[in-house]
Amino acid sequence: MINVLFAAKAERWDTYEAPLRAAFAELGLDVDLRTEFAQEQVDYIVYAPNSDVQDFTPYTRCKAVLNLWAGVEAVVGNDTLTQPLARMVDYGLTQGMVEWVTGHVLRHHLGMDLHIKGQDGVWRDYVPPLAEDRRVTILGLGALGMACAKALRGLGFTVTGWSRTPKEADGITCLHGADGLAKALERADILVLLLPNTPATENTVDAAALARMPKGAFIVNPGRGPLIDDDALLAALDRGQIAHATLDVFRVEPLPADHPYWAHPDVTVTPHIASETRPESASRVIAENVRRGEAGEPFLHLVDRSAGY
Amino acid sequence: MINVLFAAKAERWDTYEAPLRAAFAELGLDVDLRTEFAQEQVDYIVYAPNSDVQDFTPYTRCKAVLNLWAGVEAVVGNDTLTQPLARMVDYGLTQGMVEWVTGHVLRHHLGMDLHIKGQDGVWRDYVPPLAEDRRVTILGLGALGMACAKALRGLGFTVTGWSRTPKEADGITCLHGADGLAKALERADILVLLLPNTPATENTVDAAALARMPKGAFIVNPGRGPLIDDDALLAALDRGQIAHATLDVFRVEPLPADHPYWAHPDVTVTPHIASETRPESASRVIAENVRRGEAGEPFLHLVDRSAGY
Repeated sequence: MINVLFAAKAERWDTYEAPLRAAFAELGLDVDLRTEFAQEQVDYIVYAPNSDVQDFTPYTRCKAVLNLWAGVEAVVGNDTLTQPLARMVDYGLTQGMVEWVTGHVLRHHLGMDLHIKGQDGVWRDYVPPLAEDRRVTILGLGALGMACAKALRGLGFTVTGWSRTPKEADGITCLHGADGLAKALERADILVLLLPNTPATENTVDAAALARMPKGAFIVNPGRGPLIDDDALLAALDRGQIAHATLDVFRVEPLPADHPYWAHPDVTVTPHIASETRPESASRVIAENVRRGEAGEPFLHLVDRSAGY
Repeated sequence: MINVLFAAKAERWDTYEAPLRAAFAELGLDVDLRTEFAQEQVDYIVYAPNSDVQDFTPYTRCKAVLNLWAGVEAVVGNDTLTQPLARMVDYGLTQGMVEWVTGHVLRHHLGMDLHIKGQDGVWRDYVPPLAEDRRVTILGLGALGMACAKALRGLGFTVTGWSRTPKEADGITCLHGADGLAKALERADILVLLLPNTPATENTVDAAALARMPKGAFIVNPGRGPLIDDDALLAALDRGQIAHATLDVFRVEPLPADHPYWAHPDVTVTPHIASETRPESASRVIAENVRRGEAGEPFLHLVDRSAGY
């Protein structure tokens, strides 16, 4: 019997209990799944960083903490956590992100808002350039960034990706390092932010970065709020350096109603909906990692604690 | 020397002269390209249906009429035209259409308008289903419809296509005939219209068709205005049977400022911008057909005069 503790907010239990049980059964794992256990009896913790479990010390037998979310910034610095920590890389989360990013990149590429907001009887027949003449830069080439890069490339866009460590992908210009970042920004007609939230990525999009981008560029941020220096972005929007920003994530969420982003005509606030973990596919990832732990195989999606993601 | 008459509005000459000359040169064709010729000396006519040439009788030597546009409804019924007539199937037109259709299908799928129009400080965190749980039906599986079907399938949508004659494509449910049309409409969470404009396709989307669609469906029409019975669509929008229609083409263009579509809150009018022929790529298609004509090879994209497209 494998003891799996589900440590997340109560409403998540309602959503995840059935898919998790189904996923364990599918792999033939004999699991006792509960929201409470004697701490020293727990083999694995299915974890949401906003749960009550913040001290991992008593979980002496625990073989791994399996995060339900893609982002681990709220747990990676927890010194009591000595067990392996796995991030969620969920098919549903990735696919939803690809759809949201592709949709908003196409929206800015096609200039949709002109028509969505401007139904005034005036026939304004501007035909946009083809996607191959539009340069999209994606900062972050993890599971999400790479999937978005490939989808946008598949639609014809000229795609550049940037990541901390070197990566490669067919048809995508992959850059890295500080020089690479400057180059990636210079060609960003549309900039998509999918970096993890770490001390090193905070304010990646600051005044200097914004000044490097082509005048009239677009920003799409489904990554994390702290990637952007908000005051610098507002200033860049006011002087037209950035034509429009579509922002899904913020330093404080929900974004307070009096935040200047809400009122700015060139900002679209979306309420952290770009994507979310889907219970069915995420439960299969959790179950696979439990199987691996029991079989002594390496865990999937292990967090590099020094890099912070 | 091959005599090619350019018969289109004067402003098109400015756009097309250089790319056409380049395309002919690229294929090593010795072409005399002009906007005026003695009629009996013309070998090929590069043609826009709104040009001054409406009587083809005097063009006794003409081997083919090469349409600059995808739509031929304004020329196909011309009884003086006895020469082969080729439609334009242009890479740029197709690619632009794929981008526009994919963008607006994603827009409706993601529910973007809620946020684009509703920047009121209220955090409404609705996460849409994945594309695989959204059924898109495309009416018309010609070059444009098939390219859009494949792109949407590539993004994960559940895609059904319908065409007059049977077609096949990997991963796309292809239906045809009257029974097929009913079935295609019944599963159209999002309906895309890319049929040609012929007497047989007029009012394909009438009251009966609209009633067959799932309640709250979306319509995207980048095809031709007469495909839709406008009064029936307005009634279906008013009773919520159709949630929103994005319309790029109309029976009269520009759409008159007092047309009810402009004022309807659930209609987005776009000014016939979904796609247009691109001079560079279209000129290559024209040149290739002239080469084929001179070599005695079959023309590309010949119009079936009885079918009307």
